[in-house]
Amino acid sequence: MHRLIPRLATIAFALLFVLTPAALRADEGMWTFDHPPLEAMQNAYGFTPSIEWRMHVMHSCVNFGGGSGAFVSADGLVLTNHHVALNQLQKMSSAEHDYQHDGFFAHTHAEEMPCPDLELKVLQSLSDITADVQAAIDPKAPPVQQNVQRKAAIAKLQAAASKRTGLKMEPVTLYQGGEEWLYGYRTYKDVRLVCAPEEREAFFGGDLDNFSYPRHDLDFAFFRVYENGAPLHSTDFLAWSLSGPKANDLAIVVGHPGRTNRQRTVTQLEYERDVQRPLAIRLQEQRVDALHTFAQQGAEQARQASGLLRGLENNLKRERGFLELLRDPAYLAAYAARERTLRATVAADPKLAAYSDAWTHLDTVQPLNRTFGRSRQLHEFGRVSRLADIATGIVRMTAEMAKPNEQRFREYQDSNLNTQRFQLLSPAPIHADLEEMLLAQRFQTWVDSLHADDDFAKVSLSGADAKSAAHALFAGTALMDVSARKALLDGGAAAVAASKDPMIVWARAIDAPYRAERKRFEDEIESVETLEGARIARARFALSGHDLYPDATGTLRLSYGRNAGYAQLNSTVPWHTTFYGLFNRANGFDFQSPYDLPKRMRAAEKSIDLSTSLDFVNTCDIIGGNSGSPVIDRDGRYVGLVFDGNIQSFLWTFGYSDAQARCVNVDSRAILMVLRKVYDMQSLADELTAAAK
Amino acid sequence: MHRLIPRLATIAFALLFVLTPAALRADEGMWTFDHPPLEAMQNAYGFTPSIEWRMHVMHSCVNFGGGSGAFVSADGLVLTNHHVALNQLQKMSSAEHDYQHDGFFAHTHAEEMPCPDLELKVLQSLSDITADVQAAIDPKAPPVQQNVQRKAAIAKLQAAASKRTGLKMEPVTLYQGGEEWLYGYRTYKDVRLVCAPEEREAFFGGDLDNFSYPRHDLDFAFFRVYENGAPLHSTDFLAWSLSGPKANDLAIVVGHPGRTNRQRTVTQLEYERDVQRPLAIRLQEQRVDALHTFAQQGAEQARQASGLLRGLENNLKRERGFLELLRDPAYLAAYAARERTLRATVAADPKLAAYSDAWTHLDTVQPLNRTFGRSRQLHEFGRVSRLADIATGIVRMTAEMAKPNEQRFREYQDSNLNTQRFQLLSPAPIHADLEEMLLAQRFQTWVDSLHADDDFAKVSLSGADAKSAAHALFAGTALMDVSARKALLDGGAAAVAASKDPMIVWARAIDAPYRAERKRFEDEIESVETLEGARIARARFALSGHDLYPDATGTLRLSYGRNAGYAQLNSTVPWHTTFYGLFNRANGFDFQSPYDLPKRMRAAEKSIDLSTSLDFVNTCDIIGGNSGSPVIDRDGRYVGLVFDGNIQSFLWTFGYSDAQARCVNVDSRAILMVLRKVYDMQSLADELTAAAK
Repeated sequence: MHRLIPRLATIAFALLFVLTPAALRADEGMWTFDHPPLEAMQNAYGFTPSIEWRMHVMHSCVNFGGGSGAFVSADGLVLTNHHVALNQLQKMSSAEHDYQHDGFFAHTHAEEMPCPDLELKVLQSLSDITADVQAAIDPKAPPVQQNVQRKAAIAKLQAAASKRTGLKMEPVTLYQGGEEWLYGYRTYKDVRLVCAPEEREAFFGGDLDNFSYPRHDLDFAFFRVYENGAPLHSTDFLAWSLSGPKANDLAIVVGHPGRTNRQRTVTQLEYERDVQRPLAIRLQEQRVDALHTFAQQGAEQARQASGLLRGLENNLKRERGFLELLRDPAYLAAYAARERTLRATVAADPKLAAYSDAWTHLDTVQPLNRTFGRSRQLHEFGRVSRLADIATGIVRMTAEMAKPNEQRFREYQDSNLNTQRFQLLSPAPIHADLEEMLLAQRFQTWVDSLHADDDFAKVSLSGADAKSAAHALFAGTALMDVSARKALLDGGAAAVAASKDPMIVWARAIDAPYRAERKRFEDEIESVETLEGARIARARFALSGHDLYPDATGTLRLSYGRNAGYAQLNSTVPWHTTFYGLFNRANGFDFQSPYDLPKRMRAAEKSIDLSTSLDFVNTCDIIGGNSGSPVIDRDGRYVGLVFDGNIQSFLWTFGYSDAQARCVNVDSRAILMVLRKVYDMQSLADELTAAAK
Repeated sequence: MHRLIPRLATIAFALLFVLTPAALRADEGMWTFDHPPLEAMQNAYGFTPSIEWRMHVMHSCVNFGGGSGAFVSADGLVLTNHHVALNQLQKMSSAEHDYQHDGFFAHTHAEEMPCPDLELKVLQSLSDITADVQAAIDPKAPPVQQNVQRKAAIAKLQAAASKRTGLKMEPVTLYQGGEEWLYGYRTYKDVRLVCAPEEREAFFGGDLDNFSYPRHDLDFAFFRVYENGAPLHSTDFLAWSLSGPKANDLAIVVGHPGRTNRQRTVTQLEYERDVQRPLAIRLQEQRVDALHTFAQQGAEQARQASGLLRGLENNLKRERGFLELLRDPAYLAAYAARERTLRATVAADPKLAAYSDAWTHLDTVQPLNRTFGRSRQLHEFGRVSRLADIATGIVRMTAEMAKPNEQRFREYQDSNLNTQRFQLLSPAPIHADLEEMLLAQRFQTWVDSLHADDDFAKVSLSGADAKSAAHALFAGTALMDVSARKALLDGGAAAVAASKDPMIVWARAIDAPYRAERKRFEDEIESVETLEGARIARARFALSGHDLYPDATGTLRLSYGRNAGYAQLNSTVPWHTTFYGLFNRANGFDFQSPYDLPKRMRAAEKSIDLSTSLDFVNTCDIIGGNSGSPVIDRDGRYVGLVFDGNIQSFLWTFGYSDAQARCVNVDSRAILMVLRKVYDMQSLADELTAAAK
């Protein structure tokens, strides 16, 4: 009954699909840095980003692992979202100091607070290894074999490139398997928190206003990257814009969009609609309910649950939006019509007709996804409990280390070991009561939703009930202590095999079913999806040249568009909001939570210029993972901070339309003003404006 | 493709219909003053309006003829909307003084400006004459005869009551014919303009923001009623509230809702959907286009067209919303289900089964509506040209005066003659070029859309083209001069018959086809609709007791509800806005029209309290005609001024739901503040607060 996404938006979107089955829409695309849409940008905005422009921007942008950011000073200052920083804020906080809620303000370098386990990456190189990988694959071998050959070739190339460059090399598969790349990163592990506003200011309106627009959030946080104990000095940063964005100006967003499904097949979307997304929603709803119950136990429990709750509620709103779209018959019909057109074109072209069975082959995987894929989704327990993740991580890592590099799981290949240790040995606090409750809940779900002799459930419960089983793990483990983890990692497979720590015993027991399931997935699903996806990509390349962009993969992308409002309901939404709007909304709800403006902002009202631009929207093509991306103007200046898409932008998972979907950003002028007038962060403001243009 | 009304709203509404086919929703109803929902109000809000409370409020409320208002001081001060005052503002303005655009501010009684033709009415008495009318009808006579008997009985009772009370008596048919009433009014014709803000302030956001919410309009205007050349002194006025409305408080709206269709049959709605509303929209669109063209000729033409344009664009948005609803299959299905339930209940009840053919009888009229009704709708030329209305008015009135009172058209019966003369002899300026252009357009529509030998077209054109025909009427007429009209009225039928004025010649020629068409409508459509509507009403009374309210009829009604925001899209709309919001929106659109805040308001920014409540919403059940109604709290204080419904309230034409539909009002605190701080109207503000509570 409740419709998240305005009908107008979905209908306009479906029509676009029908009317223009192939051509790109204006401002469409999340482009890789090797291959930006120079001609389209020039035609639409009279601007071509030079190679120098692009390299500078690439080296100025920061990967937060699921989020984005950018350097904004010569001294390693990095700007991202408060909600990207949230995980670290929560880990740095305690019952005594709640930085998530109260904010954090370092006035000197000495006051900057080290993050427990934040690794930042900055992209340095991109290498296309498609030809080399293809050369290592025997196209006549069965898919399972081809996939093994493919992975081994990538691992070998990766190790060699890593050795040659000293960079952290990560393989990236683009175009559903159509291209294979290696991305080389500099990584930074000494990252310190500089400044974060109060959560209520960063996330004004809370979940109620989440994904809405007009919006009034100051969703920012500053970190500083240190190298050898001192701030990182570099010229690779974006100069701050004092004048901010303008209506209808070109806007460029550079960041790390996580995942889009624009080139999935209809049957893949139907699987998502019928199985994957409903199950994901159910699992998340369970956790949200449990966390709310946990939070009601007291103030400290509420604090411990709050970060997780915020993330889950954010995700749930998005997942529900996706599902609503997938269940809209008009929408899926338009998507299907576009696929039919492509298949007919391929079939009718003698040079491409050989590819025309790729869709049929992909379809054959879907029945397996609906049964085996469902169990596999239920079995996933990553991020339910960080301690459980650490235990299974120690067991897996020590086992994988015993193998040659190329035969290991990708995440345990040499270039990742450093990162893995960093995470496993993180000193960040673990809230055992909360994690035990969530793990018990997941065990219970296995009992309730899986076959009676399910391996995951059997080895986890061993005849006990879910609560007792989870309690036994947490009550007896020593892994809360980082040194215990270190001893196991240093002791390797032998130490792990000898351990009687109940959490390790459990992790050992679940390792075999985990590996069996993962192998089956790689052999029977991933192999087909990658190989057939690559064939479709080849057909698309043949038809469109290379005038395409790949689905999002969490790697660096460039989007472009214009700062512009839109029609909504029977009125018009302006391209930007001001601090008048912030106070209007707080007053409109009589300062009731989540509109209880923090006292620092209320106190500053008379000394700030309320007409200062606060948030603004543009047509840049983004998706989750772009949070924290800079909005850059044609002069390379930092004019805004991406923090959200409006609700209509959920469509962008499946395709682009600029009818109502918008990228939502904080104005650079707003950040500078509140640093000076609300938070008394003069030195930070001075640092930003030192090289301002 | 464009959807005005959010899908959620229509779906929630349809579900309400299905789930509760008969029961009233909370806060539903536009109640007559003889019959307010005392028990429901007491149960929901712990308040019962006493008889004294009701009489005081009834005597304090003012009928503006299509709009509403209320006395707000002991010296005859009346508050209504700027858009209700618009017609008078336009008539008072000239090329030199554009009060519509610039506002009007009288600082002394001497500066108050007489309105050219504004008659206000205040309800004094209500008499149920149903039994007397029924007694005069022979139920065995054919419908045509019954309708004639009915009308004659009403006219007779009306004349007698008029004579007895000295009041202006107006018959009111309620419940589709189920009840007949006489409403007695005091009338006032010496009404003077006291204060109106700039149009851009009263209608901030223009047509773009019309029917939207959150809203930031100061849609008010003050008049003063004079009697014998002095301000009317009375204790019948609403005391001003200094504290204004509160969230969730009981709100009572008293005004004159114009027309709802909540008890129409499905086939009547289908006629509206297929014929009546599309045609109304087409005719209005034509006029809007023509007016825009006219306005482009120059500043003075733009000024002349502006009031009409604003009214038409307002209407068009509403009509399109109604049509969209009627075309929503889910909505009409729910409406039909409700009707089926009622019909089945009636058929199954031995005492009521005799009524069960009423719907079938009503259905028989619809084919005629689709043919004859369509031509009749096309023939309507009232309000296309005021001069043409005056000419036809003079012809009709002089002819009707020759008949006995009871046999005249209702509008020319004795108690209406005073009002008719007042309008026909209005000195308000007539923009002949504009009116000629619009009348020519209507003539052309007759040529284009009607049968070749259509009487209206034939007598109007007499072989000429539409433009020439209209030009001949305006070029040769003397009716621009009020004394020429007076001479004809005074000379009566003989003078009219002898007149060679081309406008009168035309009005004489069109009189016969007009009368023939009106008679056919009364005999073949109105008679059936009233008699069968009355039978359905009797069945509903038998089923529900008298726990019902009649569809709106432009007469005084009481609605009640609570001040409350609502969920919209994926967020929440607050129950009220503030002046922060006004400045936020102006800044958000960079002060571009229609967000170009007038300079008086911009200049006052620093001296006003921006957190002052500006507009607010409540769940009171209103419809067009309620504009200008007071919002009254339980202590009888004036807390707000109704000026709009949000777009979701378009649903209320067909039924009530409080899911998203809201009545939109100006806060009493906002009006008082701008009088003092923006418009320097201290004496007016003092007058308001003299008896404030």
